[in-house]
Amino acid sequence: MISGEQLIGAQQRRGTVGEFRAFSPVRDAVLEPAFGGGDAADVEQACSLAQAAFDPFRRNLPELRARLLETIAEGLLALGDVLIERAHLESALPLARLQGERLRTVNQLRLFAQNLRDGHWSAATLDAALPGRQPPRPDLRSQKIALGPVAVFGASNFPLAFSVAGGDTASALAAGCPVIAKAHPAHPGTSELVGRVIQQSVRELGLPEGVFSLLHDSDTRLGLALVTHPVIQAVGFTGSRRGGLALQAAAQARPQPIPVYAEMSAINPVFLLPAALQARGEAIAQGFADSLTLGVGQFCTNPGLLVAIDGPELQGFVEAAAALLATKPAGTMLTPGIRAAYDAGAARVREQSGVSTPAEGSAQLCLTDASTFIANPLLHEEVFGPGALLVTCRDRAELLALAESLEGQLTATLQLDEADADLARALLPVLERKAGRILANGFPTGVEVCHAMVHGGPFPASSSALHTSVGSMAIERFLRPVCYQDLPDWLLPPALQNANPLGLWRRLEGKPHPA
Amino acid sequence: MISGEQLIGAQQRRGTVGEFRAFSPVRDAVLEPAFGGGDAADVEQACSLAQAAFDPFRRNLPELRARLLETIAEGLLALGDVLIERAHLESALPLARLQGERLRTVNQLRLFAQNLRDGHWSAATLDAALPGRQPPRPDLRSQKIALGPVAVFGASNFPLAFSVAGGDTASALAAGCPVIAKAHPAHPGTSELVGRVIQQSVRELGLPEGVFSLLHDSDTRLGLALVTHPVIQAVGFTGSRRGGLALQAAAQARPQPIPVYAEMSAINPVFLLPAALQARGEAIAQGFADSLTLGVGQFCTNPGLLVAIDGPELQGFVEAAAALLATKPAGTMLTPGIRAAYDAGAARVREQSGVSTPAEGSAQLCLTDASTFIANPLLHEEVFGPGALLVTCRDRAELLALAESLEGQLTATLQLDEADADLARALLPVLERKAGRILANGFPTGVEVCHAMVHGGPFPASSSALHTSVGSMAIERFLRPVCYQDLPDWLLPPALQNANPLGLWRRLEGKPHPA
Repeated sequence: MISGEQLIGAQQRRGTVGEFRAFSPVRDAVLEPAFGGGDAADVEQACSLAQAAFDPFRRNLPELRARLLETIAEGLLALGDVLIERAHLESALPLARLQGERLRTVNQLRLFAQNLRDGHWSAATLDAALPGRQPPRPDLRSQKIALGPVAVFGASNFPLAFSVAGGDTASALAAGCPVIAKAHPAHPGTSELVGRVIQQSVRELGLPEGVFSLLHDSDTRLGLALVTHPVIQAVGFTGSRRGGLALQAAAQARPQPIPVYAEMSAINPVFLLPAALQARGEAIAQGFADSLTLGVGQFCTNPGLLVAIDGPELQGFVEAAAALLATKPAGTMLTPGIRAAYDAGAARVREQSGVSTPAEGSAQLCLTDASTFIANPLLHEEVFGPGALLVTCRDRAELLALAESLEGQLTATLQLDEADADLARALLPVLERKAGRILANGFPTGVEVCHAMVHGGPFPASSSALHTSVGSMAIERFLRPVCYQDLPDWLLPPALQNANPLGLWRRLEGKPHPA
Repeated sequence: MISGEQLIGAQQRRGTVGEFRAFSPVRDAVLEPAFGGGDAADVEQACSLAQAAFDPFRRNLPELRARLLETIAEGLLALGDVLIERAHLESALPLARLQGERLRTVNQLRLFAQNLRDGHWSAATLDAALPGRQPPRPDLRSQKIALGPVAVFGASNFPLAFSVAGGDTASALAAGCPVIAKAHPAHPGTSELVGRVIQQSVRELGLPEGVFSLLHDSDTRLGLALVTHPVIQAVGFTGSRRGGLALQAAAQARPQPIPVYAEMSAINPVFLLPAALQARGEAIAQGFADSLTLGVGQFCTNPGLLVAIDGPELQGFVEAAAALLATKPAGTMLTPGIRAAYDAGAARVREQSGVSTPAEGSAQLCLTDASTFIANPLLHEEVFGPGALLVTCRDRAELLALAESLEGQLTATLQLDEADADLARALLPVLERKAGRILANGFPTGVEVCHAMVHGGPFPASSSALHTSVGSMAIERFLRPVCYQDLPDWLLPPALQNANPLGLWRRLEGKPHPA
């Protein structure tokens, strides 16, 4: 079922540049078949098809896009164990985790299908003409439309939910943007299986073939060619800070710059407030150890930083956490490269002046004080994997200063009790400025796909603090507003016609009105 | 009443770098008083005050920000003729035009005040916990919050509506962002008068002084220092493509890149469809000549490009338009620099191979054919002022090809009758991709401030096709979403508390619900 070919519109074509195979960390061996990397002609053809597909795809009824997403969801489920087993071989992620990730991917596609039918995404807005006003006001209506063909770069750590049919693809297709996916070279087989489901779904629904293509490359060359192709109008990316910044630089250097939505880097601080720590330090230590080691720590929301005011309860917490971490089995990481980067990064933290290491092994817990942390930029960097740093503060003022010193984050967490209310209220405004999601009494791993989710945050968590890559609002990255002034009803798009044929909630004179 | 000082928080301080005076094109002479340009210490102080003001300002009740905007509006009106006369001396814009622009500025401030009370801007979204689901879903709520202190660069051609208290400032303050305005050196006196109204309004309402500062510089040095200061989190700019791109490059080169919302460059194509041209060519010529020469052509929505299929009606149109343009009096432009740039740009168009010039004088109309236009990038560039280019197409296919060849535009206009329906339907998808606003049977000058307005568009019309700089949606540039997971009600911001104390429309499980 896996041929090693690229999917370019309705065709399949073997790339001719730099043959490569997936490496299985489970088997410690390469997997068949061989994949061929694409060349400039492949990029050109995929882009040309995407451009041809763009107007018919975006201007078709939203219902058709909803059915496309649902058909893809059905197709993913129909692949059954074939998909899960290949993803397991390519990523070493456990079968149960991958089954959960598939369900999440399917539910994400279905959520966007449902949202398309609700129509909130189109932001249809009508301001009536005021012919008697001086000067007269014309009839003005606006809606959001698709931005253009989108390049999607799959993530290493979510071969399903953040890859070929993941959140970027689902939200871009929902918006009406054709997608050209660049498969992650760590899971090209999984990518092809998923890509074929999308290709087949596009065909079944009679949509233009250029709605979707899948390209391969084991290097960065093809990705840069894609991002700099004039047809591409936006980029979705989940991965390293270095990778995201390289795409961003390429996108900005184009004659026409385009937005790059790169979800990059976070250490996800968890603040252990005094009353909570006193009341339930052991339970917090258990929750922390579980969250830190979940999936061998390979989550962008992994809790890499703990912050607390020093005291006897904290000593107990550290001992409990270290003991719990010592019981965690060593896990196989996604790729040998990620393992090597984690080992080097974890060692670098241990070697910093003023840092001690209460737990070292399958998972690592280091310890330092606030002034050391604030002064050393290296300690603010993400180490992707099961390592965390606990920073002790002298007092409340130092804890607030530490919060202010943080870079942008995907999440910030408060472990708090009612007796911590004053400190929590003082911290909250700082954390709002620093993070996209703020949690109380939980742990940041686990990102719900729903309307209120924000998976993003100030730089470097994301390249655009204005957007989220998970949840209903993710579609906003791929839409732009267009205003129509005095157009005759027969020329207006359906969302804005007088009769409201799509049955949308629309804003009339600024107020929401049901159909 | 005009001292030549900068306004830094509650203080006034004379800049010490590069003294300069406004030049009056009306009097052909400089105006008193002298202004002092700011230095790095002024930028530092304004930014430091803005940062200190940020949390209290954004977290205060939206009602307080609404009252700030209304107080500023009242203050602008209370300045009376002093403001209009100084703006007239500095810009040569007629008094009646400036009175209209003041009313627009005041109405814009009031619209954002009203929007703040409606609460749609906050996008409050609630998804309830599902404790019985496997895995359990936490309680998730999100709202949009202010992005951070904003730098606003005033435009030369709207000393009121796109300057110190213009659309960028109004929408940033509405969002809860402190504003540091850089006065345009062509109208520093108008800027100071308006700035003092804002400074006084901040004081009257007891808001932190750092909510607003006004800095001067006759050069680009201070502006770049402002954009690269770590406190600044977004930039609003209306002006030239070159200026916008310079700010964008500086913002992207920061350790933490920030968004620049630059409204830059457009030629605003007007398509004269055959039936409309036949039925009312003279009326269209009249509307065009009036729109082209309004305000000496100094509008970003000036109709700089006409497109039509060749034929006898078109010859009649050209003759009528040329005759009408010849009757238009020569106008005084905003600055000698703008006059020189227009004269040079208009001459450059005339000198291009394949271009003829049926009307030359106070306003210019040039003529060329589609293949010449498509092949010559210079003819696609904006010439700021009362000059237009009419491009003749052989047929419908060439007209569509021309539309495809256009860069991003603020507006695109169709002059059409019902008999033009087929061609209009074929053009509309192309124009949707090219422009932020599409008009039928009007002219693009005149930008209504309302909910449905889009003043922006694909590059180079704007640096962000996702946003508008005019109308209710302009506030979205200065907001970012934050998600709150399982926060106790007492810690949640008011917009998201169970009791809905602000009385907002909120989205519950994706559906809008009134308070």
